[in-house]
Amino acid sequence: MVAGPQPRPLSNALLFGLVPVASWFVIRPLISPIPQVPAIYSSIGFSLFAFLVTIYLVPALGPPFVRANLKGRDLLKTYAVPIPESQGLVVASVYILSLLLFIPFAFARPFAKLANAKPSSEGITVLEFPHHQLAVYLSSIISLLIASFLGFLDDVFDIRWRHKLPIPIIASIPLLLVYFAEHGNTTIVVPLPLRSLLGNLLDIGPLYYLYMILLSTFATNSINILAGINGSEASQALIIALSIIVNDLLYLPWPVGFRIPLHLLGSPRDIEFGGLWGAGMAMGSQVLVERHLFSLYFMLPLVAVLTGFLYHNWYPARVFPGDTLCYLAGMAFAVVGIQAHFSKTLLLFFMPQIFNFILSTPQLFGLVPCPRHRVPRFDPETNLLYPSKALFFKSPSKLTTLILRVFSTLGLVELTVHPKDGTILETTNLTLFNTLLVRLGPMNEKRLNQLLIVTQVAGSLVAFVVRYGLAGLVYDGDRR
Amino acid sequence: MVAGPQPRPLSNALLFGLVPVASWFVIRPLISPIPQVPAIYSSIGFSLFAFLVTIYLVPALGPPFVRANLKGRDLLKTYAVPIPESQGLVVASVYILSLLLFIPFAFARPFAKLANAKPSSEGITVLEFPHHQLAVYLSSIISLLIASFLGFLDDVFDIRWRHKLPIPIIASIPLLLVYFAEHGNTTIVVPLPLRSLLGNLLDIGPLYYLYMILLSTFATNSINILAGINGSEASQALIIALSIIVNDLLYLPWPVGFRIPLHLLGSPRDIEFGGLWGAGMAMGSQVLVERHLFSLYFMLPLVAVLTGFLYHNWYPARVFPGDTLCYLAGMAFAVVGIQAHFSKTLLLFFMPQIFNFILSTPQLFGLVPCPRHRVPRFDPETNLLYPSKALFFKSPSKLTTLILRVFSTLGLVELTVHPKDGTILETTNLTLFNTLLVRLGPMNEKRLNQLLIVTQVAGSLVAFVVRYGLAGLVYDGDRR
Repeated sequence: MVAGPQPRPLSNALLFGLVPVASWFVIRPLISPIPQVPAIYSSIGFSLFAFLVTIYLVPALGPPFVRANLKGRDLLKTYAVPIPESQGLVVASVYILSLLLFIPFAFARPFAKLANAKPSSEGITVLEFPHHQLAVYLSSIISLLIASFLGFLDDVFDIRWRHKLPIPIIASIPLLLVYFAEHGNTTIVVPLPLRSLLGNLLDIGPLYYLYMILLSTFATNSINILAGINGSEASQALIIALSIIVNDLLYLPWPVGFRIPLHLLGSPRDIEFGGLWGAGMAMGSQVLVERHLFSLYFMLPLVAVLTGFLYHNWYPARVFPGDTLCYLAGMAFAVVGIQAHFSKTLLLFFMPQIFNFILSTPQLFGLVPCPRHRVPRFDPETNLLYPSKALFFKSPSKLTTLILRVFSTLGLVELTVHPKDGTILETTNLTLFNTLLVRLGPMNEKRLNQLLIVTQVAGSLVAFVVRYGLAGLVYDGDRR
Repeated sequence: MVAGPQPRPLSNALLFGLVPVASWFVIRPLISPIPQVPAIYSSIGFSLFAFLVTIYLVPALGPPFVRANLKGRDLLKTYAVPIPESQGLVVASVYILSLLLFIPFAFARPFAKLANAKPSSEGITVLEFPHHQLAVYLSSIISLLIASFLGFLDDVFDIRWRHKLPIPIIASIPLLLVYFAEHGNTTIVVPLPLRSLLGNLLDIGPLYYLYMILLSTFATNSINILAGINGSEASQALIIALSIIVNDLLYLPWPVGFRIPLHLLGSPRDIEFGGLWGAGMAMGSQVLVERHLFSLYFMLPLVAVLTGFLYHNWYPARVFPGDTLCYLAGMAFAVVGIQAHFSKTLLLFFMPQIFNFILSTPQLFGLVPCPRHRVPRFDPETNLLYPSKALFFKSPSKLTTLILRVFSTLGLVELTVHPKDGTILETTNLTLFNTLLVRLGPMNEKRLNQLLIVTQVAGSLVAFVVRYGLAGLVYDGDRR
């Protein structure tokens, strides 16, 4: 048996260097002069702590996880040592704890009083979250807790595919109920071409709740099915979270003035930051600033814990995330998309996941045989990954043949056909990973994950172009 | 191997009989004429559903629990078949889900509007929870979720005794932070004899938070150490929950008028119900009514799920609760004690647990050897339980000897002493169960659990006498 990888080294300099920095950030809102958005500093501070705790706790908890039978073999390696599985549990615990500890900094009255004592400055000053947002914040935490809990149960009980689907629905119940109890807005902004028919805003009522459920289900499961190679789950979640943060920053009041030349993307006007109404895309709307602050408060610690985890999950992985991590991250994205009302933009950041999901549907819905694992095939000789294949035991239906022929023409799959009658005998599995291997040839696991990251970043760049450039063609500045 | 017990039978009549009743209760607040406290009906309805779901789900989930290695041998039986363990997880899930589904009925604006449309009647009319209570309700759910989650992790990872102690502290963080954010009251009512020194009310500030942490820790762990025989965990929690409900009912507006002759217990006045200010002990205070409604909303579904679980956990047990159940129940009691401000009364309901805890301290703190299991000893021949014993491998210290002699004089333990020099060689384990067996002789497991229930009920009766009779000597009617 080949020995498995040793735990990744951790320098004490990290600990001693970051603790004072993180502490300063946490208590910054209490130090005069009070900054414009004091709680952001605490959020950054807690995120730094969350990063530290995760990066140290993950390797420390490996052995107890293995003892508790939460372990797995790495299928794409030559060694067979058990790797701790479901360590997304650690990530989830640290993440949720940091969100909890942040509560007094964002909501407590003594803090708010301190901030209010500040003389008013020009532009938007977001002193504190409005107090009524606390219920929304708490219901989001409940959803995250339930998603992580159910993800962990999935790891322990190994729940069947079909029984898993409602998990995000259960987890979104608290979100939806508090949305309902708070009489949340169920209107959508109508695209310009349809306004003559439907008016500017359309209240879609209960359909909006259905939409939110679908969004949670999609965000959660789409990450879960683009998985299986070292680092892939955490990497994609990390890029999505960073994209959301960049988007949030566009709406926040900046202390310095600058301009983003949006006319290059085809938008009628540029975004200006700083100055009298210093809140970028928010264009003076306090509601929009608050929503994107809310989103930022959930995304900063998420980036922190994902980074800490990825350090140990990077190829060759010392730990596995389990379904717990995918459920946690997916739910966190759904939470901010719903509560901060930018679900359309959010979906734009999910382009690789949407592509992977659409590509997968013939296997998910049983048109093409679906083996238990669809991860690429590992060749121990060359240490490279090759596209894995699904075999047809009986000849495929006409519909299946048509779909696969289209996929093949688009270069998404590689088919093996009967030399005489041309019936399809096997196809590469319908996942983004296999498509990348079909297009770019065999490569090693680390390279494939880097390629996933590049794809995800490219997707986000396109998303920004679409959102702030092309969207001007079908939506005006009215964003509710 | 002797065959284990078969699953307890469930009649379909239960299902078909209760579903319409439960449904009627859930939707009762929407039916005219709207009752005085509409949400109570929904709470009862959800509790009935929770009971049904628990009683059907617990046996159904037994096999997957056993497959996931969540199983244990019943130490006090002749058979060795694996019994599903940690089924408190099912109880916790159903309980928390029913609390979540109840949110719109207690807090949603459309419901509140309906209730407000009602013409005002005489006396206190609690239309709905005040909206700001939603955050408190949600933070309580987060605490319950964390307690159950950590309890389950304890079952999966088998956390060591010393590492377990902080679990309730972590679980009470959301409770305390929201209490802080909401600027919760940290004053205590000073007993009459001390008022000349301290005034009527004393603000103990941070000490109040320490007190709340200690309360959570005690409520959780004290149930966890009075455990080990079939049905004991659920039985004691059930009696405590029922006692809290009886206490809550004393503060609610009753539609019928009656009087409780409290002067018999030494109180200066009786409690009157109904009439102009129809809220018993609340004596016209809407705050007190709201607090006890809050408590009732948490206790009704708890009683329901505990009853459903106890049906399968009753001697001979088909399922075990695991630490999950103890943490859930303990945290639920701490939540209502803290948020509804009746922690002193709550502690009175914990008398058997307090007794068991004090009795256990010499073993918990290492003065007396503490074997891994302190449950009574089972004799397969007679099918009876006998007191289990702790052996001294070296002669006990003077302090230990003194304590054990006192316990022995009080009849709490049975000592085996050296026939010549009188040093203590062994003692029965320091638990309430062993004391009951020492005092009343060997008995079977079912009988011992019935005795625990009797003790718990007797304790609650004493608690009511102390609270509403004797407390008049040191406290007046001022209850904050």
